[in-house]
Amino acid sequence: MSSPTLWVKSAATLTPDGFVEGATVQVAAGQVVRVWASGEAPTPKPADEILDLGPQLLLPGFVNSHTHAAMNLLRGFSDDLPLDPWLHQHVYPAEARLKPGDILWGTRAALLEMIASGITTFVDMYFALDEVAQAVRESGTRAVLGRGLITVSGRGEEALAEASDFHRRTQGSADGRITTWLAPHAPYTTTPDYLQAVGEAARALGTGVHIHLSETRREVEDCLAAYGVTPFGLMRKVGLDRQPLLAAHAVHLTADDLESFSDWRPGIAHNPISNLKMGCGMAPVARLLELAMPLGLGTDGVASANSLDFFLTMKASIWGARGATGDPCWPNAAQILHAASAGGARAVELHKKTGAIAPGLAADLIGVSLQGVGLEPVHDRISTLVYSATAAAVKTVLVDGKLLYQDGAFLTLDQEAILAHAAEIGRRLVAKN
Amino acid sequence: MSSPTLWVKSAATLTPDGFVEGATVQVAAGQVVRVWASGEAPTPKPADEILDLGPQLLLPGFVNSHTHAAMNLLRGFSDDLPLDPWLHQHVYPAEARLKPGDILWGTRAALLEMIASGITTFVDMYFALDEVAQAVRESGTRAVLGRGLITVSGRGEEALAEASDFHRRTQGSADGRITTWLAPHAPYTTTPDYLQAVGEAARALGTGVHIHLSETRREVEDCLAAYGVTPFGLMRKVGLDRQPLLAAHAVHLTADDLESFSDWRPGIAHNPISNLKMGCGMAPVARLLELAMPLGLGTDGVASANSLDFFLTMKASIWGARGATGDPCWPNAAQILHAASAGGARAVELHKKTGAIAPGLAADLIGVSLQGVGLEPVHDRISTLVYSATAAAVKTVLVDGKLLYQDGAFLTLDQEAILAHAAEIGRRLVAKN
Repeated sequence: MSSPTLWVKSAATLTPDGFVEGATVQVAAGQVVRVWASGEAPTPKPADEILDLGPQLLLPGFVNSHTHAAMNLLRGFSDDLPLDPWLHQHVYPAEARLKPGDILWGTRAALLEMIASGITTFVDMYFALDEVAQAVRESGTRAVLGRGLITVSGRGEEALAEASDFHRRTQGSADGRITTWLAPHAPYTTTPDYLQAVGEAARALGTGVHIHLSETRREVEDCLAAYGVTPFGLMRKVGLDRQPLLAAHAVHLTADDLESFSDWRPGIAHNPISNLKMGCGMAPVARLLELAMPLGLGTDGVASANSLDFFLTMKASIWGARGATGDPCWPNAAQILHAASAGGARAVELHKKTGAIAPGLAADLIGVSLQGVGLEPVHDRISTLVYSATAAAVKTVLVDGKLLYQDGAFLTLDQEAILAHAAEIGRRLVAKN
Repeated sequence: MSSPTLWVKSAATLTPDGFVEGATVQVAAGQVVRVWASGEAPTPKPADEILDLGPQLLLPGFVNSHTHAAMNLLRGFSDDLPLDPWLHQHVYPAEARLKPGDILWGTRAALLEMIASGITTFVDMYFALDEVAQAVRESGTRAVLGRGLITVSGRGEEALAEASDFHRRTQGSADGRITTWLAPHAPYTTTPDYLQAVGEAARALGTGVHIHLSETRREVEDCLAAYGVTPFGLMRKVGLDRQPLLAAHAVHLTADDLESFSDWRPGIAHNPISNLKMGCGMAPVARLLELAMPLGLGTDGVASANSLDFFLTMKASIWGARGATGDPCWPNAAQILHAASAGGARAVELHKKTGAIAPGLAADLIGVSLQGVGLEPVHDRISTLVYSATAAAVKTVLVDGKLLYQDGAFLTLDQEAILAHAAEIGRRLVAKN
């Protein structure tokens, strides 16, 4: 290759085969070429770049498999309420005050937080997607974007046409970092006919569908009452099992749902913090991993989860699952670290692009330090990463081999301006009339 | 008073009546004299000290109501196992390798982590308490220390005599910062006669009792089978309701247990991370708060909880409780922040000494910054503190009005030496023969 090579040295690099001690990762044209064991890497050429991370561990960047990034503007503005009044009396009225440009700033604010937490790819469902795409483009991150589609507004057809148009304009943009999917909100805010039309559109466009599914017990009961099938059953009934599907939440799964996964493997975005805090319940994480489902972790939006620290999401995945089952062994730390990167990539069919440090995949890499108070002594690196670390341990973030974050400094985003704008917009959104 | 006055200024100070904006806390002889509202504090005298925390919020220091501090040495060395093999095949063999001095270093390492997380008082149950007391003395923190007492070793009488002797030598030492309680390990590692003797000794010494109680379902079933009462019932049967009692865990409470709290109010140390991770279940937090029980939060030891970040403990308290009950409203953030300080102080009867910022109480104060990525925008300070912040937000820690920690620097402990010694000892403890 003619482009200069980047050599990333770390104390150890996590590959699909485990840690490689003292590894050097060879990166060219934004992709991992090879992971060299200690002492085996060739001598860099004069034009090459070297990034020596010293004692840091090098991990694949995290994939946040479900969020509403711009809701960063609404952090902690109405906690400790049931889902329904929270949405209708607080979230929707605040969102109704959004003006053009707000979602750009909100997404930028979320991107600061995601990058600082080691998230290199995020899967978003929101509105004003051109603003979201602009923030992704500027930030240098990778994203799967879907415009939320509902029919209860009476503008379902128009929204689907807009989303299809957005897909044609945006798919593969930002040097291939942006993927666009169609994102019908949920079975209870759309109709089966509309969902069928969305599936047809997705297949015509050659893309996937991202939807909230089986988040609450009531949603499942209502769906059974209305259509005689569970929300997952409805997906098959309307043909949404015929293109890639990402189901966010999947908290309340019936025996039939689990049985159906023997010949249908939708991606699942597990959002433990949001689900626990909102009292929705807990997805059967250990069972889904046992079934080898494509399972990623998601933060959901900051309005419900209050944080995009992906290390908190990993912890909540384990604590919540074990609280629900009483099983102290599963899921374990290694499984959840895998779900945080490779699992999320698999769930949105980006596993041939990102989610692991391996030849041919994008150099989406994070450097994490396990040195310092609250982390040492380190007897087991995976344990310390999952159970002890927080976002504060992330020191280095690269996407496509390009450095986005180093030792607290953002190299593509203006932290000061973004936090100031987000605070100002946030105040306007939550202002009582 | 003749000692110089310390004036602590903050953006807002949390008192039992809520936040006081722009407050100045007047401190003399280590105690809070008065909280002055913005613009109302008298002009400091030339000899006075001023600590201006700028945008930080000033909160009461946290009370970690149950831990085994020196187990910091064993962070993450054997996760994802059931309690019984974890204890017998991993923890006890590792602890058997402890040498004199190890517990001093392990406690120092835990103190770094606790101070950095805003914990100013901790309640410890362990061995070699003179080493633990030395670490407390050096660090400047406050502690309630109890030597673990068991009879299964055959050395129960000797241990109780040692504990009583330690109490006589140590109670009220370190300028009054150390309190010593007796700490029988649990009903299943002692006998009713022994527990009765411990109670008698505690009452003769004028102190309290700290014990693990109702941590697992099996413990409750075994206790019912052996003695016809629950572990809490056993406490009353052997007279341990006649001096202060701190029950660590209290996960599995029967209707009788809850009923008994109408005329008996033992302190409860709730350890959500350990209980969730070990699959033990979840204490009925909302119900205990509804009953106005003296409820504190604890980290348990780092060998089971992997972290002493008290902000994680607060989050797990809410996530775990709501996962167990499905109620999205309770416990709420304000209740859990209260439990983290005042509740813990009440649970060990230190509420006339610490746990709140009020006249006559010790100036155990922490400064927390809610500025920066992952915290802004701030719509509700209590929400952001509990749901969004981690230990990284703690910038300032004082105990008895003395500064222990400021902007990442420890003023009483040698971070570098402690982490190096703890790592070395840790490696020896977990080495396989």
